[in-house]
Amino acid sequence: MPFSLNERLKAGGIDFGRHGMCRVLLKNNALFPWFILVPEVDEEITELHQLDQDDYDSVMQTVREISRFVQSHFKPDKLNVAAIGNIVSQLHIHVVARFETDPAWPDVIWGNAEKRAYENDAIGALREAYRHYIS
Amino acid sequence: MPFSLNERLKAGGIDFGRHGMCRVLLKNNALFPWFILVPEVDEEITELHQLDQDDYDSVMQTVREISRFVQSHFKPDKLNVAAIGNIVSQLHIHVVARFETDPAWPDVIWGNAEKRAYENDAIGALREAYRHYIS
Repeated sequence: MPFSLNERLKAGGIDFGRHGMCRVLLKNNALFPWFILVPEVDEEITELHQLDQDDYDSVMQTVREISRFVQSHFKPDKLNVAAIGNIVSQLHIHVVARFETDPAWPDVIWGNAEKRAYENDAIGALREAYRHYIS
Repeated sequence: MPFSLNERLKAGGIDFGRHGMCRVLLKNNALFPWFILVPEVDEEITELHQLDQDDYDSVMQTVREISRFVQSHFKPDKLNVAAIGNIVSQLHIHVVARFETDPAWPDVIWGNAEKRAYENDAIGALREAYRHYIS
Protein backbone atom coordinates (compact mmCIF):
# COMPACT_ATOMS: atom_id res chain seq x y z
CA MET A 1 0.00 0.00 0.00
CA PRO A 2 1.71 3.26 -1.06
CA PHE A 3 2.31 6.09 1.39
CA SER A 4 -0.26 8.71 2.17
CA LEU A 5 -0.10 10.77 5.34
CA ASN A 6 -2.66 9.73 7.95
CA GLU A 7 -5.46 12.28 8.20
CA ARG A 8 -5.16 12.66 11.95
CA LEU A 9 -1.42 13.31 11.83
CA LYS A 10 -1.96 15.74 8.97
CA ALA A 11 -4.71 17.65 10.77
CA GLY A 12 -2.67 18.12 13.96
CA GLY A 13 0.64 18.94 12.31
CA ILE A 14 2.33 21.81 10.53
CA ASP A 15 4.31 20.64 7.51
CA PHE A 16 8.07 21.17 7.85
CA GLY A 17 8.88 19.36 4.63
CA ARG A 18 10.85 16.21 4.10
CA HIS A 19 14.11 15.19 5.75
CA GLY A 20 15.75 11.95 4.68
CA MET A 21 12.89 9.48 4.20
CA CYS A 22 10.60 11.26 6.65
CA ARG A 23 7.83 13.79 6.43
CA VAL A 24 8.52 16.22 9.29
CA LEU A 25 5.55 17.70 11.11
CA LEU A 26 5.50 20.20 13.94
CA LYS A 27 2.62 19.33 16.22
CA ASN A 28 0.41 22.39 16.51
CA ASN A 29 0.77 22.71 20.26
CA ALA A 30 2.81 25.66 21.47
CA LEU A 31 3.00 24.23 25.01
CA PHE A 32 5.46 21.52 23.95
CA PRO A 33 8.03 21.80 21.13
CA TRP A 34 6.97 18.56 19.48
CA PHE A 35 8.02 17.13 16.14
CA ILE A 36 6.57 14.06 14.47
CA LEU A 37 8.57 12.18 11.85
CA VAL A 38 6.61 10.01 9.45
CA PRO A 39 8.71 7.66 7.32
CA GLU A 40 7.30 7.66 3.80
CA VAL A 41 7.10 3.91 3.48
CA ASP A 42 4.53 1.26 2.67
CA GLU A 43 1.69 1.72 5.12
CA GLU A 44 1.75 -1.92 6.08
CA ILE A 45 4.93 -1.11 8.01
CA THR A 46 3.76 0.02 11.43
CA GLU A 47 6.86 -0.81 13.51
CA LEU A 48 10.41 0.55 13.30
CA HIS A 49 11.91 -2.94 13.29
CA GLN A 50 9.88 -3.86 10.19
CA LEU A 51 11.86 -1.35 8.13
CA ASP A 52 14.63 -3.02 6.17
CA GLN A 53 18.11 -2.34 7.52
CA ASP A 54 18.91 0.58 5.21
CA ASP A 55 15.58 2.28 5.84
CA TYR A 56 15.90 1.69 9.59
CA ASP A 57 19.35 3.28 9.63
CA SER A 58 18.10 6.22 7.56
CA VAL A 59 15.08 6.85 9.76
CA MET A 60 17.13 6.59 12.96
CA GLN A 61 19.64 9.03 11.49
CA THR A 62 16.83 11.49 10.82
CA VAL A 63 15.62 11.02 14.40
CA ARG A 64 19.16 11.86 15.54
CA GLU A 65 19.36 15.00 13.41
CA ILE A 66 15.95 16.31 14.41
CA SER A 67 16.78 15.55 18.05
CA ARG A 68 19.98 17.59 17.75
CA PHE A 69 18.07 20.47 16.25
CA VAL A 70 15.47 20.35 19.02
CA GLN A 71 18.21 20.20 21.67
CA SER A 72 20.13 23.06 20.12
CA HIS A 73 17.15 25.32 19.48
CA PHE A 74 15.00 24.78 22.56
CA LYS A 75 17.62 23.71 25.12
CA PRO A 76 15.14 21.47 26.92
CA ASP A 77 15.71 19.70 30.21
CA LYS A 78 14.92 16.37 28.51
CA LEU A 79 14.03 14.97 25.14
CA ASN A 80 11.30 12.37 24.81
CA VAL A 81 11.73 10.22 21.69
CA ALA A 82 9.13 7.56 21.00
CA ALA A 83 7.36 5.36 18.47
CA ILE A 84 4.01 4.42 20.02
CA GLY A 85 1.14 4.25 17.54
CA ASN A 86 -1.54 2.72 19.75
CA ILE A 87 -4.12 5.09 18.26
CA VAL A 88 -2.65 6.07 14.88
CA SER A 89 -0.89 2.97 13.60
CA GLN A 90 0.91 4.69 10.70
CA LEU A 91 4.58 4.54 11.68
CA HIS A 92 5.61 7.84 13.26
CA ILE A 93 8.22 8.95 15.75
CA HIS A 94 7.73 11.69 18.32
CA VAL A 95 10.63 13.99 19.24
CA VAL A 96 9.49 16.24 22.08
CA ALA A 97 11.36 18.89 24.06
CA ARG A 98 10.39 18.67 27.71
CA PHE A 99 10.95 21.21 30.44
CA GLU A 100 10.67 20.86 34.18
CA THR A 101 8.38 23.88 33.95
CA ASP A 102 6.06 22.50 31.25
CA PRO A 103 2.43 21.74 32.18
CA ALA A 104 2.81 17.94 32.05
CA TRP A 105 6.24 17.44 33.68
CA PRO A 106 7.32 14.81 34.76
CA ASP A 107 4.51 12.85 33.14
CA VAL A 108 4.58 11.90 29.48
CA ILE A 109 2.60 14.06 27.08
CA TRP A 110 0.78 11.28 25.24
CA GLY A 111 -2.82 11.27 26.31
CA ASN A 112 -2.26 14.03 28.86
CA ALA A 113 -1.13 17.11 27.08
CA GLU A 114 -2.93 20.41 27.23
CA LYS A 115 -3.05 22.15 23.88
CA ARG A 116 -2.56 25.68 22.65
CA ALA A 117 -2.18 26.47 18.93
CA TYR A 118 0.90 28.39 17.79
CA GLU A 119 0.79 32.04 16.87
CA ASN A 120 1.69 32.41 13.20
CA ASP A 121 4.84 34.42 13.80
CA ALA A 122 6.18 31.79 16.20
CA ILE A 123 5.89 29.18 13.47
CA GLY A 124 7.69 31.43 10.98
CA ALA A 125 10.65 31.96 13.31
CA LEU A 126 10.90 28.27 14.12
CA ARG A 127 10.71 27.32 10.46
CA GLU A 128 13.54 29.73 9.74
CA ALA A 129 15.72 28.25 12.50
CA TYR A 130 14.91 24.73 11.33
CA ARG A 131 15.84 25.48 7.73
CA HIS A 132 19.09 27.04 8.87
CA TYR A 133 20.01 24.00 11.00
CA ILE A 134 18.78 21.20 8.74
CA SER A 135 20.43 21.78 5.40
CA MET B 1 31.47 9.50 35.07
CA PRO B 2 31.72 5.72 34.55
CA PHE B 3 28.64 3.54 34.16
CA SER B 4 26.73 2.13 37.07
CA LEU B 5 23.14 0.98 36.73
CA ASN B 6 20.64 3.36 38.28
CA GLU B 7 19.21 1.96 41.51
CA ARG B 8 15.61 2.46 40.47
CA LEU B 9 16.07 0.69 37.15
CA LYS B 10 17.94 -2.11 38.91
CA ALA B 11 15.27 -2.57 41.58
CA GLY B 12 12.42 -2.83 39.05
CA GLY B 13 14.20 -4.99 36.51
CA ILE B 14 15.23 -8.59 36.04
CA ASP B 15 18.71 -8.88 34.56
CA PHE B 16 18.77 -10.43 31.07
CA GLY B 17 22.47 -9.83 30.57
CA ARG B 18 24.23 -7.67 28.05
CA HIS B 19 23.45 -7.32 24.37
CA GLY B 20 25.66 -5.10 22.24
CA MET B 21 26.46 -2.08 24.42
CA CYS B 22 23.29 -2.40 26.47
CA ARG B 23 22.32 -3.93 29.76
CA VAL B 24 19.00 -5.67 29.08
CA LEU B 25 16.40 -5.67 31.84
CA LEU B 26 12.96 -7.23 31.90
CA LYS B 27 10.67 -4.97 33.87
CA ASN B 28 9.16 -7.04 36.66
CA ASN B 29 5.58 -6.51 35.55
CA ALA B 30 3.81 -9.51 34.11
CA LEU B 31 0.96 -7.38 32.77
CA PHE B 32 3.13 -5.92 30.01
CA PRO B 33 6.06 -7.66 28.30
CA TRP B 34 8.45 -4.79 28.85
CA PHE B 35 12.19 -4.63 28.25
CA ILE B 36 14.49 -1.78 29.21
CA LEU B 37 17.83 -1.33 27.45
CA VAL B 38 20.46 0.66 29.28
CA PRO B 39 23.49 1.65 27.19
CA GLU B 40 26.60 1.18 29.31
CA VAL B 41 28.01 4.61 28.63
CA ASP B 42 29.21 7.61 30.57
CA GLU B 43 26.37 8.69 32.81
CA GLU B 44 26.59 12.25 31.60
CA ILE B 45 24.97 11.02 28.39
CA THR B 46 21.24 11.20 29.01
CA GLU B 47 19.99 11.53 25.41
CA LEU B 48 20.28 9.16 22.47
CA HIS B 49 21.56 11.90 20.18
CA GLN B 50 24.47 12.58 22.55
CA LEU B 51 25.92 9.16 21.78
CA ASP B 52 28.66 9.35 19.19
CA GLN B 53 27.70 8.00 15.79
CA ASP B 54 29.09 4.49 16.28
CA ASP B 55 27.50 4.10 19.71
CA TYR B 56 24.21 5.50 18.41
CA ASP B 57 24.18 2.99 15.57
CA SER B 58 25.04 0.15 17.94
CA VAL B 59 22.34 1.05 20.45
CA MET B 60 19.71 1.47 17.73
CA GLN B 61 20.70 -1.92 16.32
CA THR B 62 20.18 -3.48 19.74
CA VAL B 63 16.78 -1.77 19.96
CA ARG B 64 15.95 -3.34 16.58
CA GLU B 65 17.03 -6.82 17.66
CA ILE B 66 15.19 -6.74 20.98
CA SER B 67 12.12 -5.38 19.18
CA ARG B 68 12.24 -8.29 16.76
CA PHE B 69 12.49 -10.75 19.62
CA VAL B 70 9.55 -9.14 21.41
CA GLN B 71 7.48 -9.17 18.20
CA SER B 72 8.36 -12.78 17.46
CA HIS B 73 7.84 -14.10 20.98
CA PHE B 74 4.79 -12.18 22.18
CA LYS B 75 3.07 -11.35 18.86
CA PRO B 76 1.73 -8.07 20.22
CA ASP B 77 -0.75 -5.79 18.51
CA LYS B 78 1.76 -2.93 18.79
CA LEU B 79 5.23 -2.20 20.04
CA ASN B 80 5.95 0.93 22.03
CA VAL B 81 9.61 1.99 21.77
CA ALA B 82 10.70 5.05 23.71
CA ALA B 83 13.48 6.97 25.39
CA ILE B 84 11.85 9.24 27.96
CA GLY B 85 13.84 9.65 31.19
CA ASN B 86 11.84 12.43 32.83
CA ILE B 87 12.15 10.67 36.18
CA VAL B 88 15.25 8.47 35.81
CA SER B 89 17.65 10.47 33.65
CA GLN B 90 20.11 7.61 33.04
CA LEU B 91 19.74 6.86 29.32
CA HIS B 92 17.39 3.91 28.83
CA ILE B 93 15.08 2.73 26.10
CA HIS B 94 11.75 1.01 26.67
CA VAL B 95 10.60 -1.75 24.31
CA VAL B 96 7.09 -2.76 25.32
CA ALA B 97 4.68 -5.26 23.77
CA ARG B 98 1.16 -3.86 23.81
CA PHE B 99 -2.10 -5.67 23.30
CA GLU B 100 -5.56 -4.33 22.65
CA THR B 101 -6.60 -6.45 25.62
CA ASP B 102 -3.97 -5.16 28.06
CA PRO B 103 -5.12 -3.12 31.07
CA ALA B 104 -3.77 0.22 29.80
CA TRP B 105 -4.67 0.04 26.07
CA PRO B 106 -4.72 2.38 24.15
CA ASP B 107 -3.01 4.65 26.67
CA VAL B 108 0.74 4.58 27.19
CA ILE B 109 2.05 2.59 30.13
CA TRP B 110 4.37 5.23 31.55
CA GLY B 111 2.86 6.64 34.71
CA ASN B 112 -0.30 4.57 34.31
CA ALA B 113 0.58 0.94 34.41
CA GLU B 114 -0.81 -1.49 36.89
CA LYS B 115 1.80 -3.91 38.22
CA ARG B 116 1.96 -7.60 38.89
CA ALA B 117 5.24 -9.38 39.58
CA TYR B 118 6.19 -12.38 37.43
CA GLU B 119 5.92 -15.95 38.64
CA ASN B 120 9.40 -17.49 38.71
CA ASP B 121 8.67 -20.14 36.10
CA ALA B 122 7.41 -17.52 33.65
CA ILE B 123 10.74 -15.73 33.88
CA GLY B 124 12.64 -18.97 33.31
CA ALA B 125 10.71 -19.76 30.13
CA LEU B 126 11.11 -16.24 28.80
CA ARG B 127 14.82 -16.23 29.56
CA GLU B 128 15.17 -19.47 27.65
CA ALA B 129 13.33 -18.11 24.61
CA TYR B 130 15.39 -14.92 24.77
CA ARG B 131 18.69 -16.81 24.89
CA HIS B 132 17.60 -18.93 21.96
CA TYR B 133 16.65 -15.89 19.85
CA ILE B 134 19.47 -13.52 20.83
CA SER B 135 22.65 -15.38 20.18
